[in-house]
Amino acid sequence: MEKLENSTDCKETVSPLNNSGSVLNCTVSGHEAMGFVLVHAGAGYHSESKAKEYKHVCKRACQRAVDRLRAGGLALEAVTAALIELEDSPFTNAGTGSNLNLSGEIECDASIMDGKSLNYGAVGALSGIKNPVLVARRLLSETQKGKLSAGRIPPCFLVGKGAEQWAISHGIPACSTEKMTTKFSLSGYKRNKRKMELAEQVETKRRRQSCGHENDLGCLEPVGDIMVEGEENNSACLDTVGAVVVDREGNVAAAVSSGGLAMKHPGRVGQAAHYGCGCWAENARDVSLYSTAVSTSGSGEHLIRTMLARECSTSMQTENAHHALLEAMQNKFISSPFLAGEDCVLGGVIVLRCCTCGEAQRSEDIQTLLVEFLWSHTTESMCVGYMSAQDSKPRTHISRLPPGAVAGQSLAIEGGVCRLGTTSD
Amino acid sequence: MEKLENSTDCKETVSPLNNSGSVLNCTVSGHEAMGFVLVHAGAGYHSESKAKEYKHVCKRACQRAVDRLRAGGLALEAVTAALIELEDSPFTNAGTGSNLNLSGEIECDASIMDGKSLNYGAVGALSGIKNPVLVARRLLSETQKGKLSAGRIPPCFLVGKGAEQWAISHGIPACSTEKMTTKFSLSGYKRNKRKMELAEQVETKRRRQSCGHENDLGCLEPVGDIMVEGEENNSACLDTVGAVVVDREGNVAAAVSSGGLAMKHPGRVGQAAHYGCGCWAENARDVSLYSTAVSTSGSGEHLIRTMLARECSTSMQTENAHHALLEAMQNKFISSPFLAGEDCVLGGVIVLRCCTCGEAQRSEDIQTLLVEFLWSHTTESMCVGYMSAQDSKPRTHISRLPPGAVAGQSLAIEGGVCRLGTTSD
Repeated sequence: MEKLENSTDCKETVSPLNNSGSVLNCTVSGHEAMGFVLVHAGAGYHSESKAKEYKHVCKRACQRAVDRLRAGGLALEAVTAALIELEDSPFTNAGTGSNLNLSGEIECDASIMDGKSLNYGAVGALSGIKNPVLVARRLLSETQKGKLSAGRIPPCFLVGKGAEQWAISHGIPACSTEKMTTKFSLSGYKRNKRKMELAEQVETKRRRQSCGHENDLGCLEPVGDIMVEGEENNSACLDTVGAVVVDREGNVAAAVSSGGLAMKHPGRVGQAAHYGCGCWAENARDVSLYSTAVSTSGSGEHLIRTMLARECSTSMQTENAHHALLEAMQNKFISSPFLAGEDCVLGGVIVLRCCTCGEAQRSEDIQTLLVEFLWSHTTESMCVGYMSAQDSKPRTHISRLPPGAVAGQSLAIEGGVCRLGTTSD
Repeated sequence: MEKLENSTDCKETVSPLNNSGSVLNCTVSGHEAMGFVLVHAGAGYHSESKAKEYKHVCKRACQRAVDRLRAGGLALEAVTAALIELEDSPFTNAGTGSNLNLSGEIECDASIMDGKSLNYGAVGALSGIKNPVLVARRLLSETQKGKLSAGRIPPCFLVGKGAEQWAISHGIPACSTEKMTTKFSLSGYKRNKRKMELAEQVETKRRRQSCGHENDLGCLEPVGDIMVEGEENNSACLDTVGAVVVDREGNVAAAVSSGGLAMKHPGRVGQAAHYGCGCWAENARDVSLYSTAVSTSGSGEHLIRTMLARECSTSMQTENAHHALLEAMQNKFISSPFLAGEDCVLGGVIVLRCCTCGEAQRSEDIQTLLVEFLWSHTTESMCVGYMSAQDSKPRTHISRLPPGAVAGQSLAIEGGVCRLGTTSD
């Protein structure tokens, strides 16, 4: 397993479990607890040669979030800032550079959740808007304002043309499909279209021969939101993105954004716009000791049916975060009864868990925040970045399954611990 | 509280709790366990004078489901049959007669879940299709067939124009908005539009006077999917529908369908198309002793944020079904931290819980099936119907909050028990 680049003062503890699991413990001391961000640029397959681009995107996203945190912004603002950067990158499968659907159009999904208010906003199959996360965020904000005229309850989820109209009427920048389409997404579309036509010809031929095996064309494999054949161009530009943040007040927020599956049917909505599936954030309260925030990536339908974001969040209330996430990924995802017929379950999560510790628990101002940050995936790889508001620069990492592990059946899990704020030493 | 009409041999047990709670126990003996259906025509406000229409719709829906069960159909087929009947009624807020949105169009949400396979299908903001549930059902069926050409994962959720195109290409009958619009829905739309305009004038005036109270216009109240002022026409045609079924093999299925909130923004998707929120069905397995199926109705955003269908299903694994549902409605809905700012939480559920009992547990063929059927609502009223495959006719009931109870803050809970198949006496 690779170590986190730029990771100084880290202690690596190899997991005793059979899976690829290790935890990197980082202690960061400082004088102010200003927050932490963890981002992902997708669980799927990231070729070594394109790793640099992914890491750059993640770095910029972390920096954007931390800039907001340093300026006094709360988790919701910071997570939005990270997502905008991730969406604007032509290399990610979100916003600009999104996968094209069957009709050659861009239709984006995005959602955001605020752990403090537990409010939520989402958009699905949204075209013509540069930053889908801004619409989700605005829906969330409007919910917080209370009812609309004549006592109507404001919507938390808008789709399609209606979502686009709503966004524009709320001053969110529009953008033509042409501007959001990159040469990568367009060439990927053309290539996939040819492959589909070929696959369908093979299928028709097989049907005529009455084989009856419609599902095993062996032509393309779906990996997360990616269709790959080991070709760089395919894997380079097709990943869902997300972020989780904790702010100086200990509030968490989570967000996710995706262009969806390549060659999807128009109108298909994936996990990024499904409540409980794409992201989740809950501040600590009453019975919950820990604040948790989760963002997912991978095969939309698998993440939807297992409600993976919420399941991971719920699981994180037991003592050992690493073990809790490992169990959730194994029992609630790979071996989930909701995916009983699937022999290849593809997805990844980033998780933030935090609690106040020491004397700070009795103080109104949070002085010390213990942040545990983890990622886990069943896909070949997952690209992550993270940064505390006290760090001089972000750290990035492409996590990979160990050699010989089978994607969709085994998992990798890694992470670290970060103590923010004034420490006793 | 009203008793169930046509309810013979029933024992009423008043709940010891403060809420309006009672359980009606019915024992039905027969020689074949062929199943049971419970339907709802919405939680909201049902005027006495229109009760007859609602009951009729529920009766027909029960009969349609039972016809399928008697013909050897499984739960999924029966629940679809019930939903088609409920959608086709011009009195319900689903399919024909759906609420019109802000633009005067019909946009429907629907979803269906199969407790055996745990497969799920949903459509959101769907126009131009007579029976939205058929599209959800077909999406579910296609999922069960495995992957599409070139290894693409079939979608479980489609929205808008893409959903409409997919439905038509799969042979599902189209229908113009004009044909699906009734004189009730049109007059309701015109009336609501006038009221909104008035409310917005008042709002503008108040803003000019710098009152700042945008949310308390006191002009209209949203009740579930209904905007009411105590006017019959409003309350008569605006309710979400759903059904839960158990078949002869003990499989459960659930479905829900809705035209959504009156005067909703185009593209708004409500709980009926949200996984875990509109319906849920899980057969008994491993740790779960009971099979459960749930369908919800009411204020979409409240049902979404509390994920009420799934929460109720999860809660039903404890011994006392009535108590479990009561606790779920109180703790996971009315007092949910996800609705902390809401003083009026509006919704209703129908729940089916079943298990094999006696010797049958060791037999491959289920001989005796214990079915507990319940409904609970925080709205003024909820219309339900139910029938076992051995009954000669369906039973219907309009459940109402007890006098003096405040809608949105208190609840009613009722139900019954039914033993299907060969009994020992």
